[in-house]
Amino acid sequence: MGVVVNLDGGFDRKSDLGALAALTSDDLVRVNALIVQAMDSPVVLIPQLAGHIVAAGGKRLRPMLTLAAARMCGYDGDRHIGLAACVEFIHTATLLHDDVVDESDLRRGLASANAVWGNQASVLVGDFLFSRAFELMTADGSIPVLRVLSHASKVIAEGEVMQLTTSNDTGTGETAYLDVIRAKTAQLFAAAGRIGALVADRPKIEEDALETYGMNLGIAFQLIDDVLDFSAKQATLGKTIGDDFREGKITLPVILAFRRGDDEERAFWRRTLEDLDQTEDDLPHAIKLLEKHGALDDTVERARHYGAIARDAMGIFGDTPEKDALIEVIDFCIERAY
Amino acid sequence: MGVVVNLDGGFDRKSDLGALAALTSDDLVRVNALIVQAMDSPVVLIPQLAGHIVAAGGKRLRPMLTLAAARMCGYDGDRHIGLAACVEFIHTATLLHDDVVDESDLRRGLASANAVWGNQASVLVGDFLFSRAFELMTADGSIPVLRVLSHASKVIAEGEVMQLTTSNDTGTGETAYLDVIRAKTAQLFAAAGRIGALVADRPKIEEDALETYGMNLGIAFQLIDDVLDFSAKQATLGKTIGDDFREGKITLPVILAFRRGDDEERAFWRRTLEDLDQTEDDLPHAIKLLEKHGALDDTVERARHYGAIARDAMGIFGDTPEKDALIEVIDFCIERAY
Repeated sequence: MGVVVNLDGGFDRKSDLGALAALTSDDLVRVNALIVQAMDSPVVLIPQLAGHIVAAGGKRLRPMLTLAAARMCGYDGDRHIGLAACVEFIHTATLLHDDVVDESDLRRGLASANAVWGNQASVLVGDFLFSRAFELMTADGSIPVLRVLSHASKVIAEGEVMQLTTSNDTGTGETAYLDVIRAKTAQLFAAAGRIGALVADRPKIEEDALETYGMNLGIAFQLIDDVLDFSAKQATLGKTIGDDFREGKITLPVILAFRRGDDEERAFWRRTLEDLDQTEDDLPHAIKLLEKHGALDDTVERARHYGAIARDAMGIFGDTPEKDALIEVIDFCIERAY
Repeated sequence: MGVVVNLDGGFDRKSDLGALAALTSDDLVRVNALIVQAMDSPVVLIPQLAGHIVAAGGKRLRPMLTLAAARMCGYDGDRHIGLAACVEFIHTATLLHDDVVDESDLRRGLASANAVWGNQASVLVGDFLFSRAFELMTADGSIPVLRVLSHASKVIAEGEVMQLTTSNDTGTGETAYLDVIRAKTAQLFAAAGRIGALVADRPKIEEDALETYGMNLGIAFQLIDDVLDFSAKQATLGKTIGDDFREGKITLPVILAFRRGDDEERAFWRRTLEDLDQTEDDLPHAIKLLEKHGALDDTVERARHYGAIARDAMGIFGDTPEKDALIEVIDFCIERAY
């Protein structure tokens, strides 16, 4: 349809994701080509908007998990390409709807799709991508894969609604918070891993292991994302910080600081996050409180815990470069914090 | 989860849909029970909001098509119940996202879900219902059914985006308008019919016939909906009129009146529908112009044309009460206009 989509987005995959990016790079070229082809439509706004978000969508970590897991499981066919594209489409549809829900103007430093084309188009193109993912899965033809990914989609939506109901509530505890990020983020990592074993027709124990790996990697990934939103390092890289704070999102760093703080501090968190009554001095003050209570460091520690579970889940697999890469990426995800 | 959902909504199905409602009423009780069960979630906002829209969602015409088509095709199993629920879930998810896109405060005289719970929850619960539909289809296990319904979902999303880009454009012609309603409305009617034959494992000619029936019934249905938005009868029943007009939607009655009118009239349509510069006298004036040019009557005539195609598509089936009911409902859909 003549819409040119740049899928690189200036992202240096190799330096950020190490051996995983290198090992999957040939397959990922094919995944990207399929993505461009599958988001085409005679309705030109669709490839325009979808191309914008797919290009801005980041490092393709989730489809890489499917690609590497399938290869690690000895799969040597082509189906993992289409399934990796499905995983990315579900992720992208979620991002589009997320940005509408969060009223975000920026995504990874670029204008968000809703800021450029409006909420209406973002909702509908999200629906298109979501439907397209199910069309691709249907073309693949595996009911077990469809079961994993339709279930993941449902759980993601539940997690997003859960997040909406805990938003701006400083009473949210660590358990409720973990329920949210397990559903909204980690479930898709888990599904991405599991279908790697599924497509290779491996025994259930290997499916379960890759699901556990993905689930715990996903939790660690989200915890570090939450840390980065308050991180000086993130600020140095020219990325915005404080998005979660401004929206009143209750993430683990805040949950820890709220519980470790005194009454005056808790009043601060309530004013800024529940009432959304914020001045420009509040974000620096929030960061000071987080540091005072070691809330950022301890969130990273929690992430290490989940990372360790992910690593141990991989123990049943024989040594392959893909296994090493999948284990290495756990550390990469966590070390982003520094 | 303790959320009580009233699925009757005071709607008298029998008087509105005649023999079709009577013949499918036992099956529909089971469909409604499955809908209530399938929209349950530990996240209580989901069954609350979904229950509101499912209850307000109307007469269950689409699932009835699947139920009656399956029975007409001699199917005597249970799978049509789940598939009819999938059709209704896709429809409901679309309604939720539609109301967000249209910024509607009312749906069938009740507060719309977005007016009560906000756009964010409506977007996310729509995603939940959509995912749930695919989970149910996957549980059913038929790849051909999944193909039909994932394709329909994609086409619906394309149609909605198309409508967005033609909205407020008085240059939209009848062909472009038909492309929109074929995609956004008629495709799901077509799919609902087709899966009736699919579940009964009938030859392709019967699948195609039920798809043609559904497609043309859907077009007729939407054309009459567009007429009713300007209709005195609708106003008498206490339903709101002029919703499309206020949103600047370009529907067939307007397309006809615009083309049949003079320059002054075209300036009126441009001001009210493109610039959305409207006073309270404008809706009555718009209706006067539509009547002057016979635009409402002729839109009903166009609907009769599609109704006739739907009727003829049914010719290949032997005589059964279900066939009679499916043919009768064409007239019911069209005679709503009077």
